[in-house]
Amino acid sequence: MPSDSAPKIDGARLWERLMALARIGATGRGGVDRQALTDNDAAAWRQLIQWSVIHKLRAERDDAGNFFLTLPGTDPSLPPVLIGSHLDTQTTGGMFDGAFGVLAALECASAIADAGIRPPRTLTVVAWMNQTGSRFAPGMMGSAVFAGARRLVDIRAVSDAARVTVGAALDKRQGAVPLPDRPIGFPFAAYIEAHIEQATILEAANLPIGIVTGIQGKKTWRVDIRGAEGDAGTAAMATRRDAVATMALLISALYGEVAIADPAVKFTVGRVTVDPNAPAIVAGRASFTIDLRHPDHAVLKRLGAKVEMLCKMLARPCAVRLERLDNAPPMAFDARLLDWIESVAEAAGHGSMRLLSAAGHDARYMARLAPSAMIFIPCRGGISHAETEWAEPAHVTAGAEVLLGSVLPLLTS
Amino acid sequence: MPSDSAPKIDGARLWERLMALARIGATGRGGVDRQALTDNDAAAWRQLIQWSVIHKLRAERDDAGNFFLTLPGTDPSLPPVLIGSHLDTQTTGGMFDGAFGVLAALECASAIADAGIRPPRTLTVVAWMNQTGSRFAPGMMGSAVFAGARRLVDIRAVSDAARVTVGAALDKRQGAVPLPDRPIGFPFAAYIEAHIEQATILEAANLPIGIVTGIQGKKTWRVDIRGAEGDAGTAAMATRRDAVATMALLISALYGEVAIADPAVKFTVGRVTVDPNAPAIVAGRASFTIDLRHPDHAVLKRLGAKVEMLCKMLARPCAVRLERLDNAPPMAFDARLLDWIESVAEAAGHGSMRLLSAAGHDARYMARLAPSAMIFIPCRGGISHAETEWAEPAHVTAGAEVLLGSVLPLLTS
Repeated sequence: MPSDSAPKIDGARLWERLMALARIGATGRGGVDRQALTDNDAAAWRQLIQWSVIHKLRAERDDAGNFFLTLPGTDPSLPPVLIGSHLDTQTTGGMFDGAFGVLAALECASAIADAGIRPPRTLTVVAWMNQTGSRFAPGMMGSAVFAGARRLVDIRAVSDAARVTVGAALDKRQGAVPLPDRPIGFPFAAYIEAHIEQATILEAANLPIGIVTGIQGKKTWRVDIRGAEGDAGTAAMATRRDAVATMALLISALYGEVAIADPAVKFTVGRVTVDPNAPAIVAGRASFTIDLRHPDHAVLKRLGAKVEMLCKMLARPCAVRLERLDNAPPMAFDARLLDWIESVAEAAGHGSMRLLSAAGHDARYMARLAPSAMIFIPCRGGISHAETEWAEPAHVTAGAEVLLGSVLPLLTS
Repeated sequence: MPSDSAPKIDGARLWERLMALARIGATGRGGVDRQALTDNDAAAWRQLIQWSVIHKLRAERDDAGNFFLTLPGTDPSLPPVLIGSHLDTQTTGGMFDGAFGVLAALECASAIADAGIRPPRTLTVVAWMNQTGSRFAPGMMGSAVFAGARRLVDIRAVSDAARVTVGAALDKRQGAVPLPDRPIGFPFAAYIEAHIEQATILEAANLPIGIVTGIQGKKTWRVDIRGAEGDAGTAAMATRRDAVATMALLISALYGEVAIADPAVKFTVGRVTVDPNAPAIVAGRASFTIDLRHPDHAVLKRLGAKVEMLCKMLARPCAVRLERLDNAPPMAFDARLLDWIESVAEAAGHGSMRLLSAAGHDARYMARLAPSAMIFIPCRGGISHAETEWAEPAHVTAGAEVLLGSVLPLLTS
């Protein structure tokens, strides 16, 4: 029942909704498989629409598959405040990645609606399409299109492993959950995203709130090694051009030289392919991916140059070709918004610290359009994108409270 | 037309048959794809049966899918001389590996039949089932079962990539090319296999004939690395257990420490797998194969111990498990047979040298049962198991002539 008083986060309701949402795509081992634009993802939309009916939120979508629940303000001329995150997960994802940010945002809108107040500025809850990139690579598709960083026509052409395109999946979604359209990239006043930290800084500091100052930079490559096939039993070692031998040397050198440059470096070779990949054949081709991240732009550039130099230096007797993929510089969130969120956390009695996000988030793209920020809460052991992902109910409530406290004044200004 | 004279190799006929056989499974790029127990392999059987009809050879098979063409002797109580090789190839194999040995053997039988002589001892041409191991791993299946080194029931259970078992493929073959049965492992007096060298020793020495003294020893392993999955963007480097990082270090150290121990070592990591093999996820698991060969038993043992020691030493922070697969000691062929073949080559005016086989051959198993030997001819650049595999017509003829000269006296003794 709405009551005329200060809006207040209902921690129990938020937790219940988190647990209920986790049942949509539940893996049966504590995790969630709710990939972008699947039937499970559509069921999540329907569940959110059902919850928001009582609060009279307006459900909409845009052509990029982004989902909006809006609490209209009294002055439609004011651009809305946007809060949210994503609903899609990895195949063996957890209950909190993305879901926490969307449901904390919904709880803010619910709390304001329940309080019976109607601020001048509109509040819009958003769930961005395909943040994880698990089904359609790369991720952050919906927010990238919303921000004009990628074109709708390009993401529509991307296929999943079953050769279903984003375009076909988007069209199917509009049939499955028909909603009114919003234009892609409509104006908004500010964006705040609440999220689990996915690292252990807050846990180690025993603090419930992280004020996210920015997102570390990221460079990725695909490295292709071309050698010569040969017979494992007869080809003389001295004249071999063994793609696996060169690959192993390269990866080993990169881990040794780049990965340990300083404690802030993140360096990962996550995917490796070998051809023909037969035990008794000297491999003629091999390839691997490099994922390099760092919060400092200058260091990231320097390490990136080192990666490329090492790949060239250690190529012999094979030929090595580097293909640059991502090249996202470190980014910083809005300084005034961060100060404001910090003061809100302090006033609410929630201990906080400033930290950098190691992972990419949709907020990266929103920051191009309007003042943006992120609020982190701890997750156990820093584990995320895994079925054992866990956040404490008290931290979930605290995160939502700081989000509400940060949003409310923006709605009246 | 049979004529009563000394049997003589018809080099032109042998070469024509080689080229005709190469059309069965031709890749269109000079190579052959005629994997074990496929339709192409069945077509090769039919082609050989067709060629041997005029020579009145008896076509038979055994339950292990080995194929026999027999020129009966006058004294059925004498165990036959067995000569041959294999008809199966890799997916991008060549025209000579295996095929040369089988067709040279068929040419010997054809020449004896054409000459109108009938020696007391039976001569049997054999094509062993699945020598390459390309479709069903590991190879030398037919000869291993024939020699009692593996059980028929075990090889029947082996599956190819499409989950077709050897058993199903064997049963299908008997339907496609129905032939009378021979018992597995019937007695024989001697085995001689002609084959391309698959290395460059003869080419470098400019000699057409290699008297193969033995086969180098071989040890193979599967190495499994267990680390912990993590997020590429957030997991701190210091606490990661990155299976790819450990694998790269291990392979790199093995190539550095084992592969260059002496010029006779052959060391290959040919197959690598990573799990989940995603660019933005620190790999939790990885595995790779090791193929180590050496002609000296003591060195092979010492290097094998070094492989296992390095895998244990460099495992941290992951856990490494080694599974021993093959462990074939170096083997030597029959000394008297080698002397005899050498004298035959000399008498025929074909320059020869003694050498060791770097690759495994079915003759390894036959040597357990009766005096056995191998005759090598050069192949261009040592290239084998590849579409560019090539042997000179003059060398093909020379190899068949030495085979015939070696076999003839055995048939009368």
